[in-house]
Amino acid sequence: MVETDATALYGVELQPVGRRVQVAAGVTVLEAIQASGVELVSVCGGEGTCGTCRVRAVEGQLSAETAEEEDLLSATELADGWRLACQAQVCSALRLEIPPESLSAPQRLQLEGQSVDFVPDPPVVAVDIELEAPSLQDLRADATRLSEALALLGTGGTTISLRSARACSKRLRAQHWCGRAAVHTQMDGTAALISMQPAGGRLLGLAVDTGTTKLAAYLVDLATGETLARVGAMNPQTAYGEDVVTRITYANTAEGAADLLHEAHRGQVVDAVVVGNTAMHHFVADLPVRQLGEAPYVACVSDPVLVRAGEVGLELDGGAMLYMPANIAGYVGADHVAMLLASGLADTDQTVLALDIGTNTEISLAHKGEIWSCSTASGPAFEGAHIHDGMRAAPGAVEHVRFHQGAFQVQTIAGARPIGICGSGILDAVAQGLEAGIIDGRGSLVKDHPLVKKTASGPTCVLVPAARSGHGRDVVFTRSDVNEIQLAKGAIRAGSELLLAEAGIGPSNLDSIVVAGAFGTYLDLESAIAVGLLVDVERTRYKQVGNAAGRGAEQLLLSRERRHVADRLAKRVRYVELTVHGSFTDMFTRSLGFGRVDSSY
Amino acid sequence: MVETDATALYGVELQPVGRRVQVAAGVTVLEAIQASGVELVSVCGGEGTCGTCRVRAVEGQLSAETAEEEDLLSATELADGWRLACQAQVCSALRLEIPPESLSAPQRLQLEGQSVDFVPDPPVVAVDIELEAPSLQDLRADATRLSEALALLGTGGTTISLRSARACSKRLRAQHWCGRAAVHTQMDGTAALISMQPAGGRLLGLAVDTGTTKLAAYLVDLATGETLARVGAMNPQTAYGEDVVTRITYANTAEGAADLLHEAHRGQVVDAVVVGNTAMHHFVADLPVRQLGEAPYVACVSDPVLVRAGEVGLELDGGAMLYMPANIAGYVGADHVAMLLASGLADTDQTVLALDIGTNTEISLAHKGEIWSCSTASGPAFEGAHIHDGMRAAPGAVEHVRFHQGAFQVQTIAGARPIGICGSGILDAVAQGLEAGIIDGRGSLVKDHPLVKKTASGPTCVLVPAARSGHGRDVVFTRSDVNEIQLAKGAIRAGSELLLAEAGIGPSNLDSIVVAGAFGTYLDLESAIAVGLLVDVERTRYKQVGNAAGRGAEQLLLSRERRHVADRLAKRVRYVELTVHGSFTDMFTRSLGFGRVDSSY
Repeated sequence: MVETDATALYGVELQPVGRRVQVAAGVTVLEAIQASGVELVSVCGGEGTCGTCRVRAVEGQLSAETAEEEDLLSATELADGWRLACQAQVCSALRLEIPPESLSAPQRLQLEGQSVDFVPDPPVVAVDIELEAPSLQDLRADATRLSEALALLGTGGTTISLRSARACSKRLRAQHWCGRAAVHTQMDGTAALISMQPAGGRLLGLAVDTGTTKLAAYLVDLATGETLARVGAMNPQTAYGEDVVTRITYANTAEGAADLLHEAHRGQVVDAVVVGNTAMHHFVADLPVRQLGEAPYVACVSDPVLVRAGEVGLELDGGAMLYMPANIAGYVGADHVAMLLASGLADTDQTVLALDIGTNTEISLAHKGEIWSCSTASGPAFEGAHIHDGMRAAPGAVEHVRFHQGAFQVQTIAGARPIGICGSGILDAVAQGLEAGIIDGRGSLVKDHPLVKKTASGPTCVLVPAARSGHGRDVVFTRSDVNEIQLAKGAIRAGSELLLAEAGIGPSNLDSIVVAGAFGTYLDLESAIAVGLLVDVERTRYKQVGNAAGRGAEQLLLSRERRHVADRLAKRVRYVELTVHGSFTDMFTRSLGFGRVDSSY
Repeated sequence: MVETDATALYGVELQPVGRRVQVAAGVTVLEAIQASGVELVSVCGGEGTCGTCRVRAVEGQLSAETAEEEDLLSATELADGWRLACQAQVCSALRLEIPPESLSAPQRLQLEGQSVDFVPDPPVVAVDIELEAPSLQDLRADATRLSEALALLGTGGTTISLRSARACSKRLRAQHWCGRAAVHTQMDGTAALISMQPAGGRLLGLAVDTGTTKLAAYLVDLATGETLARVGAMNPQTAYGEDVVTRITYANTAEGAADLLHEAHRGQVVDAVVVGNTAMHHFVADLPVRQLGEAPYVACVSDPVLVRAGEVGLELDGGAMLYMPANIAGYVGADHVAMLLASGLADTDQTVLALDIGTNTEISLAHKGEIWSCSTASGPAFEGAHIHDGMRAAPGAVEHVRFHQGAFQVQTIAGARPIGICGSGILDAVAQGLEAGIIDGRGSLVKDHPLVKKTASGPTCVLVPAARSGHGRDVVFTRSDVNEIQLAKGAIRAGSELLLAEAGIGPSNLDSIVVAGAFGTYLDLESAIAVGLLVDVERTRYKQVGNAAGRGAEQLLLSRERRHVADRLAKRVRYVELTVHGSFTDMFTRSLGFGRVDSSY
């Protein structure tokens, strides 16, 4: 036992989140971390039974290991400095490493940097300009005056669309014939005036990742690359998130995204990028979607789209353009292209598998400079749909589950009393149920297990008894829920294996595995591996990249070269249509059983 | 006296209208011409007193010359075969020449051919196409499938806008993957798909001349060049005309023009041209107009506009484009460019003066390959506004006036009882008043003339006494009305003379004088010359060309080369701003007095 001075205050430094906090000697590391404002996963609520709040002491001294820690951590882990935050007490100044999986998801996202470096080279740049006022001796039209002035400043041949012209006449007069022109230049030199901002005005860009069940909008300073605001991003907990989705889906425009902006900003937004799956892409572009729902599910437009934002009802400043990257296929959309871009798949010479898990899961494999992609119907189970007590990730949703000493422990979103189960919760429940012997390898609930009841809905396992739930009823999962997870994981496994087979390689060849998207961020890697959704390789090969599609959209706002890469990427990809692939049904059937899949399968 | 067989029927051939009619011997030539459906000007109603119904016998025999004819026609004219239609009787088979000035205006317009020959080379052409249907083995997006098929047919690099793509997916499926593609190609080779029409479908174009007080829309077959329908054209008599104008002005779109089309045609219209003055051009393009109303009256956009019609609210087929020629200046618009194009000024090496008379009168002068243009504020008098008993050209409006034997004779539109005076009527009234000594050279009404009364509105001359009017009140013109005409003709004369001075020439150098527009078509050349609005040169130098702007718009639908000429024309023109021109005020003041201006002034 290390002696501690109970009245002392020690500084605790948290890595890699970069926070510092002063705490009294003797408080638990969990309390210290919570005091710093960083949220840890802690399913059992600090009882030392779930093992989710792992941290590693890099420097400094902690209290002695407890029996709980010896139970839940291996000897090697303990030797490496791994501890349970709820058990270890602060005995000196400390430097602690918090691994991503111990951070709650929103915290994890704050850590995400740009995974790919690129030189900023935004399509829209500022050109400061001063004009002669018109007079009876100089009657040039406003647009002519502007384009001639731009030509003198080296931006010759700049076209001025009706939308730009509309916005300029009044502003030029209000600004006494000077200001900051926002000029959009493509790589082939085609230049177009977007609008006139006041002298010194900040030029903003809007990046939007629009999914069927999520929407993230980013307001970016085009000169500095700084993200000034981020709305709706990875925040499905709020009812606001649902509103946005509803608006987007039914209004069939990208206008909903712009609504997220403060009105004052709208007039400063001079460029926009929207990424989304093919259906959302078509909704935003007001393209017909009927043929996307009928075999053979072809897109109306798959090439990159560059239009004036107003043409699709997105009213930004003047003649602001909207760029939407190419779609790969009916079910592999521009959001996947953006994700591949942000996670480096477009540029790598490594072997990388990237998955964007959702109702449809898009999977891509990069190997020796080639890229294969497919889409597989994984169903909405991971979004909490088609699950007996399923719900979207909102307060009261069970998001983490541990089985300990014969009982389930659950952690809910916002710590509210449990009322249902969201995607990561149902995955955990199934994984823990397998481990606890409640579920067998074929997915059946074990009849004589004390937690399994026979009900009108078939065999059912109680996760949270009525007495502890938020609505006074049991929170359960059923045989049918387990089956939904089986179908989902089967589809994703089969898709992954089929791409590996196309490339003639196995999982051991994978340098890294990128898991993107909302569910991919929240899912517990161990649970995903336990059920066989993901392959059992070194955890360090895994990268949970959060909303990579949104970051890809930001890159596309800030770099013409990245647009070029995205355009080429969509063309390079070899799309594999699973429904006509000879091996898919076999692979899918074989993938339905539960159990770890090692890299030598 | 020639003997005639009173029971005989003779064939009468009318030139250049190309009509034939069988009439009984002894009927007047006027009756014969009316029987053929051709309308002559006949102010006195066949009494032989106004001299407006002149025709020339080219072949055949007529009854002997009457005293009235000897009175109103010179010996030379009689020797040349000129007769008054109301006096001469048919005595044999005849061939008659009807000069344009003897035809009523609508008839005159039917005679107008294309004044400039051009080789049809429409921007939009048909490409017949047959596609492979998509399958799980061929998942190309609809747009990709189309553009690749077009490339195989030699139309490579055809872009497919969102608007085109929107329209194509459904039609391609309905038409079983074949049909007629409408492809828009610019002179630089830039090609864009407009839409897919059914196989064998007719591709139509819409040409619109949109003025502040008139609107003419033409539906043209792009393959044959044939004008299939013409609506609102030169038809200000109908209340419908006013509705359209109201709609156009207040809706600020070109949509009103498309409303004139039968719904069934709209989906076949794959190209559009709109010409109008700068204000209407800006209204149609939804550009700001405020600065057009404030000194120094500059346009927002003066370059040619080529946009997708839907961008300005004109919903035609698929991605149909809208072309609007360049404006020359704030008050010399694209309609004037179209008029110059149709009347040959863009191509001529002759010396030609062209006037488009309206509230603002645009004047252009071509001389030795150079073109000068100006705009002069001639006021709304010629549209019947600011005139005591003024009215728009509608039934009951006095349109022609003759003074004969101490009394005014009037002809009204549709032959209704007179209720007011339209533009051509007031011009005639002033000219005849001058000739009759009712008005003096300074514009004053001669006090002691029996037709001049002193009233609350000042000196007034009765044109139609209450007993013969349609509303039981006198139809009059006042000193102030005469002054309006003075100001109008002064402005037009001064503008014309100033352009001649710029070119360093005089009226005798003019090879021809083109008078365009609605009023220019209806005005009586002799009256215009009598008041000094137009210069007194050989009448054969004058060309009243009707709605040349509308014909120019049609040319622009049918020929890329004409678009090129129009684009260059607007750049070539030397615009003369009268308000800052040193000599204008002097010239204007000198031009206010009435009286013939010969070519040697």
